[in-house]
Amino acid sequence: MSDPLATLMLDVDDLSAVIADVGLDAFMDELIAELRSEIGSFDAACVEHQIRSGFNYETPEHGLVEWMPTMVVGDVVSVKTVGYHPANPQRRGLPSVLATTALYDTTTGSLTTICEATLLTALRTGAASAVMTDVLAAPGPVTLGVVGCGAQAVTQIHAISRLRSIESIVATDIDPSVAATLSSRLPEGLPVPVIIDSADFNDRVPDLSVVCTCTSVPIGDGAVVDLANRQPNLHVNAVGADFPGKTELDLDDLRASVVIPDVVEQCLIEGESQRLDRDELGPSMTDVLRGDAPPLVESFTVFDSTGWSFEDLIAARLFRMHAERLGRGTWVSLQRTPVDPYDPYETLRGSSATAGLRSSGNLALVRDHG
Amino acid sequence: MSDPLATLMLDVDDLSAVIADVGLDAFMDELIAELRSEIGSFDAACVEHQIRSGFNYETPEHGLVEWMPTMVVGDVVSVKTVGYHPANPQRRGLPSVLATTALYDTTTGSLTTICEATLLTALRTGAASAVMTDVLAAPGPVTLGVVGCGAQAVTQIHAISRLRSIESIVATDIDPSVAATLSSRLPEGLPVPVIIDSADFNDRVPDLSVVCTCTSVPIGDGAVVDLANRQPNLHVNAVGADFPGKTELDLDDLRASVVIPDVVEQCLIEGESQRLDRDELGPSMTDVLRGDAPPLVESFTVFDSTGWSFEDLIAARLFRMHAERLGRGTWVSLQRTPVDPYDPYETLRGSSATAGLRSSGNLALVRDHG
Repeated sequence: MSDPLATLMLDVDDLSAVIADVGLDAFMDELIAELRSEIGSFDAACVEHQIRSGFNYETPEHGLVEWMPTMVVGDVVSVKTVGYHPANPQRRGLPSVLATTALYDTTTGSLTTICEATLLTALRTGAASAVMTDVLAAPGPVTLGVVGCGAQAVTQIHAISRLRSIESIVATDIDPSVAATLSSRLPEGLPVPVIIDSADFNDRVPDLSVVCTCTSVPIGDGAVVDLANRQPNLHVNAVGADFPGKTELDLDDLRASVVIPDVVEQCLIEGESQRLDRDELGPSMTDVLRGDAPPLVESFTVFDSTGWSFEDLIAARLFRMHAERLGRGTWVSLQRTPVDPYDPYETLRGSSATAGLRSSGNLALVRDHG
Repeated sequence: MSDPLATLMLDVDDLSAVIADVGLDAFMDELIAELRSEIGSFDAACVEHQIRSGFNYETPEHGLVEWMPTMVVGDVVSVKTVGYHPANPQRRGLPSVLATTALYDTTTGSLTTICEATLLTALRTGAASAVMTDVLAAPGPVTLGVVGCGAQAVTQIHAISRLRSIESIVATDIDPSVAATLSSRLPEGLPVPVIIDSADFNDRVPDLSVVCTCTSVPIGDGAVVDLANRQPNLHVNAVGADFPGKTELDLDDLRASVVIPDVVEQCLIEGESQRLDRDELGPSMTDVLRGDAPPLVESFTVFDSTGWSFEDLIAARLFRMHAERLGRGTWVSLQRTPVDPYDPYETLRGSSATAGLRSSGNLALVRDHG
């Protein structure tokens, strides 16, 4: 579409089509490579980001709507908007996390893209954990523990499997019916998860080299796991803490670890790190991937993954690139380039109900400009 | 559309169709009535709003992208995203302000509506000035001065004319070619504006009962008008200050007036009020419309209109209400309700390129789910 104000809308079918074309594994691999490369060369002079802000509420029930903005200077602003409503799956059959991403051109301010970001969020969250696991976990095959068997568990396991061979998976969920279906939701070729009671999970911790926590634990109900009997170089991807008051790890465990925040200021508000002082944090995700941190493979590490808006921009850009290549998406005219940018009523001219507008001689009765 | 995750997209044609059906004057009247009623009964326990935040930049040129969030508790979150690029009209033939509004259901977090908000922003900005003019200007017909003859000038004049008879209009613009077309952009039935040089505008101030400033004055280039010779009860709608550093009024004039901020915290950052201390401000727009302020008709008043996110929610809601009545808009599936909310890859199942996914027996080769 030639109008510079046209917007490309990329919906869930467009994302399915892109992933069908590229392949799910290959799409995950591209996302992993992009995250590793872009964050590994992160330059604060070129990428500005703000920590997310939003409305947290208890009416009609516990939830939030929040926005996550990032700008690549001189190029694009990305704003992902996220709804988090933990009762969605049980009460409504809807995902707990729903998201869309909007991209804006920094030259004109126009909205260039609106895209599905629910699946994209799950994919990038998995990809981020995979990258950090690859850098921070002991070399070689992984013995993986998973606490929380919902949608995020699927992408955590899938993404990690793209960088490391997974030897075994032990998984638990407070809801046995959710745990029971985890295996059927995973891509093929992975070990079938051994599902165990939450109460027994802690006994399996000594066998694990990597743990992912990805629960919807209510505020104040953590910890979801006790890591006291861990291996000395356990790596944890803690992805569930995303709300003030909501944390998944035991504070003693957290204090014993090197905590790697994805976004320092955000983690101090709503990550596992919200219970820590700034000087208790380890190097950031950016520090680690840029090579600005000491080697941590021998250490007990916790990746505090609250979700970084820059990851969302990278994911949306990858989606759009493939969609354009495939000619997917629908062009919409939320705005249209005017003949006279100073005339707000231009699109109304010639309409019968706005006959009071001078119309440069065009008095055609047009009720519907569609 | 029956999917609870479907989104109604309302574009520029839908807004034209709504206004064609309702009538431009009647639509403005409804918007004015809604703003007066909703702000006049504003209750901070029922409506939460955040001041806008965004990215201000000088690369590739001076501009910003910002977001303006409001929540009606237990009902809806509205986020308007605005681009402001003052070089757009001259360099690209595009409006300086471009905006879209997104509405979210606070029960599920789903995106229910995306709508055009460029014209809607101009309309609500005019409507807000009209309401404040009606309450704060001397009773009777208005002698109106307008500084800046772009898109905002049109809706300022139009909206005020819906509540007050306009006796005369004197207008000026730093660009004579923009001033020259103002008359042709106004609805009929209004006095033809007398266009004068910027240098001569100050001489006409003694004749004016209401002044609207709506310029794209660069940072540091104000004041755009000198009000020293004003009538003692002049009312000013200052709508152009919307950027840190950008102000339109002379500081002595501002200090001599009762300043009515639309959003106190926002005005202190980017309104005319950014040069004032908090204790120099008068009652807020909400105070005035709720009747919590003393009568100000005899006073020199300045409405510091930076634009309130709640006004945007009201405008978007009115637009959506009429669009639904008329069956306008396009339903889109940015998300789709899953069969299993815990299965992020559900929409990919059965696709050839994701054959590695277990598919509950459905191995049909479907490359495109559209």
